[in-house]
Amino acid sequence: MVSEDELTSNEKKLFKKVFDGEISLRKIDDHTDTDTGIKIRCAVLERLKDIHFDHILDYTIDAEEAVRRNIENMIGVVQIPLGVAGPLKILGEFADGEYHLPLATTEGALVASVNRGCSAISASGGSRVRIFQDVMTRAPVFKMENIVRTKDFVDWVRRPDIFEQMRDKAGETTRFGELVSVEPFVAGNNVYLRFAFDTKDAMGMNMVTIATDAIVNLISDEFGVYPVSLSGNMCTDKKPAAINNILGRGKTVVAEVEIPEDIIKRKLRSTPESMADVNYRKNLLGSARAGAIGFNAHAANIIAAMYIACGQDAAHVVEGSSAIVTMEVTKYGSLYCSVTLPSLPVGTVGGRTGIGTQKDCLNLLRVAGAGDPPGTNSKKLAEIVASAVLAGEISLIGAQAAGHLARAHAQLGR
Amino acid sequence: MVSEDELTSNEKKLFKKVFDGEISLRKIDDHTDTDTGIKIRCAVLERLKDIHFDHILDYTIDAEEAVRRNIENMIGVVQIPLGVAGPLKILGEFADGEYHLPLATTEGALVASVNRGCSAISASGGSRVRIFQDVMTRAPVFKMENIVRTKDFVDWVRRPDIFEQMRDKAGETTRFGELVSVEPFVAGNNVYLRFAFDTKDAMGMNMVTIATDAIVNLISDEFGVYPVSLSGNMCTDKKPAAINNILGRGKTVVAEVEIPEDIIKRKLRSTPESMADVNYRKNLLGSARAGAIGFNAHAANIIAAMYIACGQDAAHVVEGSSAIVTMEVTKYGSLYCSVTLPSLPVGTVGGRTGIGTQKDCLNLLRVAGAGDPPGTNSKKLAEIVASAVLAGEISLIGAQAAGHLARAHAQLGR
Amino acid sequence: MVSEDELTSNEKKLFKKVFDGEISLRKIDDHTDTDTGIKIRCAVLERLKDIHFDHILDYTIDAEEAVRRNIENMIGVVQIPLGVAGPLKILGEFADGEYHLPLATTEGALVASVNRGCSAISASGGSRVRIFQDVMTRAPVFKMENIVRTKDFVDWVRRPDIFEQMRDKAGETTRFGELVSVEPFVAGNNVYLRFAFDTKDAMGMNMVTIATDAIVNLISDEFGVYPVSLSGNMCTDKKPAAINNILGRGKTVVAEVEIPEDIIKRKLRSTPESMADVNYRKNLLGSARAGAIGFNAHAANIIAAMYIACGQDAAHVVEGSSAIVTMEVTKYGSLYCSVTLPSLPVGTVGGRTGIGTQKDCLNLLRVAGAGDPPGTNSKKLAEIVASAVLAGEISLIGAQAAGHLARAHAQLGR
Amino acid sequence: MVSEDELTSNEKKLFKKVFDGEISLRKIDDHTDTDTGIKIRCAVLERLKDIHFDHILDYTIDAEEAVRRNIENMIGVVQIPLGVAGPLKILGEFADGEYHLPLATTEGALVASVNRGCSAISASGGSRVRIFQDVMTRAPVFKMENIVRTKDFVDWVRRPDIFEQMRDKAGETTRFGELVSVEPFVAGNNVYLRFAFDTKDAMGMNMVTIATDAIVNLISDEFGVYPVSLSGNMCTDKKPAAINNILGRGKTVVAEVEIPEDIIKRKLRSTPESMADVNYRKNLLGSARAGAIGFNAHAANIIAAMYIACGQDAAHVVEGSSAIVTMEVTKYGSLYCSVTLPSLPVGTVGGRTGIGTQKDCLNLLRVAGAGDPPGTNSKKLAEIVASAVLAGEISLIGAQAAGHLARAHAQLGR
Repeated sequence: MVSEDELTSNEKKLFKKVFDGEISLRKIDDHTDTDTGIKIRCAVLERLKDIHFDHILDYTIDAEEAVRRNIENMIGVVQIPLGVAGPLKILGEFADGEYHLPLATTEGALVASVNRGCSAISASGGSRVRIFQDVMTRAPVFKMENIVRTKDFVDWVRRPDIFEQMRDKAGETTRFGELVSVEPFVAGNNVYLRFAFDTKDAMGMNMVTIATDAIVNLISDEFGVYPVSLSGNMCTDKKPAAINNILGRGKTVVAEVEIPEDIIKRKLRSTPESMADVNYRKNLLGSARAGAIGFNAHAANIIAAMYIACGQDAAHVVEGSSAIVTMEVTKYGSLYCSVTLPSLPVGTVGGRTGIGTQKDCLNLLRVAGAGDPPGTNSKKLAEIVASAVLAGEISLIGAQAAGHLARAHAQLGR
Repeated sequence: MVSEDELTSNEKKLFKKVFDGEISLRKIDDHTDTDTGIKIRCAVLERLKDIHFDHILDYTIDAEEAVRRNIENMIGVVQIPLGVAGPLKILGEFADGEYHLPLATTEGALVASVNRGCSAISASGGSRVRIFQDVMTRAPVFKMENIVRTKDFVDWVRRPDIFEQMRDKAGETTRFGELVSVEPFVAGNNVYLRFAFDTKDAMGMNMVTIATDAIVNLISDEFGVYPVSLSGNMCTDKKPAAINNILGRGKTVVAEVEIPEDIIKRKLRSTPESMADVNYRKNLLGSARAGAIGFNAHAANIIAAMYIACGQDAAHVVEGSSAIVTMEVTKYGSLYCSVTLPSLPVGTVGGRTGIGTQKDCLNLLRVAGAGDPPGTNSKKLAEIVASAVLAGEISLIGAQAAGHLARAHAQLGR
Repeated sequence: MVSEDELTSNEKKLFKKVFDGEISLRKIDDHTDTDTGIKIRCAVLERLKDIHFDHILDYTIDAEEAVRRNIENMIGVVQIPLGVAGPLKILGEFADGEYHLPLATTEGALVASVNRGCSAISASGGSRVRIFQDVMTRAPVFKMENIVRTKDFVDWVRRPDIFEQMRDKAGETTRFGELVSVEPFVAGNNVYLRFAFDTKDAMGMNMVTIATDAIVNLISDEFGVYPVSLSGNMCTDKKPAAINNILGRGKTVVAEVEIPEDIIKRKLRSTPESMADVNYRKNLLGSARAGAIGFNAHAANIIAAMYIACGQDAAHVVEGSSAIVTMEVTKYGSLYCSVTLPSLPVGTVGGRTGIGTQKDCLNLLRVAGAGDPPGTNSKKLAEIVASAVLAGEISLIGAQAAGHLARAHAQLGR
Repeated sequence: MVSEDELTSNEKKLFKKVFDGEISLRKIDDHTDTDTGIKIRCAVLERLKDIHFDHILDYTIDAEEAVRRNIENMIGVVQIPLGVAGPLKILGEFADGEYHLPLATTEGALVASVNRGCSAISASGGSRVRIFQDVMTRAPVFKMENIVRTKDFVDWVRRPDIFEQMRDKAGETTRFGELVSVEPFVAGNNVYLRFAFDTKDAMGMNMVTIATDAIVNLISDEFGVYPVSLSGNMCTDKKPAAINNILGRGKTVVAEVEIPEDIIKRKLRSTPESMADVNYRKNLLGSARAGAIGFNAHAANIIAAMYIACGQDAAHVVEGSSAIVTMEVTKYGSLYCSVTLPSLPVGTVGGRTGIGTQKDCLNLLRVAGAGDPPGTNSKKLAEIVASAVLAGEISLIGAQAAGHLARAHAQLGR
């Protein structure tokens, strides 16, 4: 709570003006420094609503920096409990070694569950993981006069020399980003151009939006059409969409592990057969029957917790978590497990990753900032997140299978 | 960073044992108090990885409480910048008045954008909002011997007297929750029973899992089948799924507003025609063409920010954000806007909502804890979140339409 | 070809008037009998396009009857080759015994393939099949003034006394149909009411459209809203839609069989393991990865061929074929196979089923006309179609698995 | 009915052997000519089931030819009533002029409805139509040892020199077909390679299956992996799948027309506003709310009727009908209408198109056989089918809007 006694006389004056509506909440920063602005904003809200803030003002991050890059009308911070799972052994192209996973969550048992999965994976030799594609996308929509002109436009867009021009134009707006491809889609009198960029260590949404804007200007100049909207939802950003699963967005990653039967029994209190069966009836058939995009148990839990910890965009959990999980009993009696993440957006540079606590988490994974060569840090992070999801799935499916076994035993014992 | 000089000699001993692997990270709490445990865990990780934590130890929330309910292997907290948008006038059945929205995000411009939407809505009389359904679901999967027995099982489950028994059984496990319906689905030799509960002010996942477990025992006793898994993915929890959009999960909410043309022009620098056009070509046609579940611009942004602020489960952004947005020019030349959220899980009681900063945010909305009568607080929160999404959509579509107008003007001006 | 010499002088006069545009093609029937009308229509088209029709005039069905119920501007018939597969042993509630399946198709090898599947199933004891739901649906869409009125409307629709009124009103329009349920869905200012009817032996689309129209008039009278369209696409008729898979439309049927290993080897030249593997990687994982509705190999082939043969609506193949197929190796080493058809529209009465050749096919299955009691014939047909799909899937998956085995052997033999 | 008196003594002997089970139904053709075989097969079924076939034996198509290419165990034909709609003016790249559409259907009013749409379109200047892509696909699935090898495989497949090898290999199996692209998709330990071919005037499924088989052998030889199944369901054939909508399969076609207000009023008894409104609330919002793939009213009706008439594969209605329909009031007060068909498989050569009656229908459209240059006939057919769908949508939406107007007037008149 901001006691009025704590306010200086100047601050009191400002408080009064805001409370009286002379100055709006969002204009406070024009009249004082950031920290004072936050305090006054809270004080006004407390008086207005007759409430007391007990914790949000207890921040230690650099508020000025946050206000510059991450937030407006700041009133403090939310503290999310942070736990660690691991070590998790990872055998990737970029992540190679043992990792402790930072997980910011309020869901009790989640960290413990992932931890158990890490243990099972590490004991089995580690998570093998590979990245198959790495692009960030933006798809403006253009309204066309008629289908004849639409066809001309699509043909024009597909010309190699036009692609070169667009790539060069995009290159003028970014030092790291690079246009990789453009794919036209038509729906009636609308053309959607899905531009895909390599954005190196940045998650890249801002980068590609700016670059796309430049390309769009080129298109306007050269072909004489201009977009209805810079995003036409075929990107597709933060909505579950088949196009992302099929064409990929962010990193397309697959992680796998083969767990020997005795480790399943000892660490997961289950059996390979029973886990494969749960995965089949739940993650595959149940999801199919539910009309789901996403054939997994709780990938979103792990991705949300790691995204929040590591300064990723929490809204990207939507497409990031669209995972397919497989579990199969091998001919050796062990359990093969895999997780396929077609569209996992992550980055290690940019405003979101620079906040103190989030940087601590990136440091824990040794992926803070730009990689050398550029792009390797974000790819490393993607491999770690995919492996963490694998751990989470193995643990939860193991637990559900164990519950099934327990019930089966109980019944037999009656 | 945890300097070794800061550690007492007892702490140093514990540190050494953990570092040497005698005591595992997750067992530290058995040997010391929570805060010391966190400190030692950090110290060990710092030494192990040769890094320094600068901020995660700067927590002020009650770590002991957090460890009891929300987190394991705690190493501190992540601070998420918190901003406020509003006031937003809401005309709901449960939320009625002006609200300031707490948004925890690292995405620069998001709070400002929502704020602009709030301003446009409030100036237009407010967001009218209604809840059409309110249930939390859990769907175990049973493997059956054959289709004849499956048919018998489904017929049995549909019997009113059996429903009564299941409802009573569930009632033994929870004071507030109540079984509302059970819906059987068949896929080959598998039966999925989707149990829907009224969970009052709790989001309710834990409550319904426990209640479903009790029902499952009743089923085992009475019908002699037991589930392969307590969740068969037709719930569907934290995966985008048509079943949630169609049958609903959490709150099914619709918010709407009619914005006069002059407010669109003044506050959004756009026109009703142009916004309706962007919504049509982007949110409807673009989403359809992309094979999307979710016909909106960025509902996930607002929901993620409010969920993180208000102690909701961040992974629920997945189904929570599955919104349909409509914008239409009315015969009076104003813009009708609506957002439909079929499956928005929220709660105001339970472990996640009790953390200091999150409680501050719930208090800001006057929805902390149980409502009177029970259920009214979580419904109020749902109405606020839906209205916030409406504000976010109006603002972003307005901006994209304004960009379009700017380009159109620039082109005409040449 | 219609030689002009074949025309009588009166016919020649009519021909001239049509050719000269005095009488339009569709008005010919006003000036002569049906058969002559067909002949003249063909003659005019032949002259107009300078072509010769060689076969379409070779019809034997009752053209007058066809023109009254099934077709306008008739110019003859298309002949579709008809084959027979079977016998197929079926153990249903309505179909019980051995059946020969009529299949009208132009796809070489399809009948042979289904025949092979029938043989494998029959040798294994037959297809066990059950129907879990049987309703035909229609969903008008209403545009509402605002969300407050929308909520009132939805509450009103859900009232038991209103349901009774609607059921009675519907009952006035049909002797057999009966309103079973009504489910409201909201999207912004739109309400979709999905009415579900028991339509007995009729497929029922016409019946439910008429009944829904009557209900809609009741709603207009009593609540003062009227629909934008009698169908709002949440029915959902002839479009692939999750709502049909989840809530069902037409018959919801499941068929299954357990095939011993030796029959798999002898009749399908494959193994249970290899078929289960193909089904898993293709029908489940491949479909999931493709964003499919429909987890099967070629259900549409069988359904199209049986629908065309049996006078069903060929456009209903779209939702009818939305099948989930499972194959699992049992603990006895046999192969458990199932097919789940959530939304299979079929009927045995009504204009489409009365055409000579189609009636022959229904007779072959002993399901022509109304069942005793009403509804049993269409249910019997549904059980037969589901079993036929099971046969088709087993045969094709068997063949693909055998191809895999052949390649494996070839490779090992090198 | 086959009277036994009609049978010769030799035929009677054969009949007896079949009836007694000495010769199976499918072996009859080994013992006699095709027509006699059909007769005996019918006679046996009649005796077996105690029924009479009245019409199926009344065929005039060349049974021998049919048995060679289209059907097994032939017992006759099914006659489907054939009507004609049009003339429809089409302004395509391949179809240019006035066309009469052959529609084989049993759904009364369908031909009349399409006819009305043709009239409205033609009066408005015709259907403008363009093809944006033309490929047929096949996607085998390979099971890999582990993700490292999977990555190697995907990298190998993406090599330009390997693509050349695959294209050459495919070229050895077909004179017309040409490999256009190969797209790898990974799901755990499975790789799906989606091969896309230009198949000219053939629909091409058989052609691409054979060519894919050759490529698969090349892959086996060169990379040492072989497929679990030649089709892994990412093709995706005859199942509704997002991948087809996004990447296209068969022809990707868009047809459009702008209808002046007075034509809407005169021919459709509706208004542009009211039709646009129905399309918006039904085809777009209703479909979105239903979780549909396919945002149209009844594209499947038209496609089924034209496919059956023109010897196309009726099961292809499933993906062929996955259309998006838009209707918008233009600034001139007319109605812009479009239909987008992302995956329309059609062909004008191959076994299915050679049957007498079907050939008559292709001739009516002047697209029978191979085009000059190759591919132009199937493209022409695709443009015609897309225009026919446009006619069907305009007519039905018009009718539903007119019904709405009628109700509105009735209500106002009270």
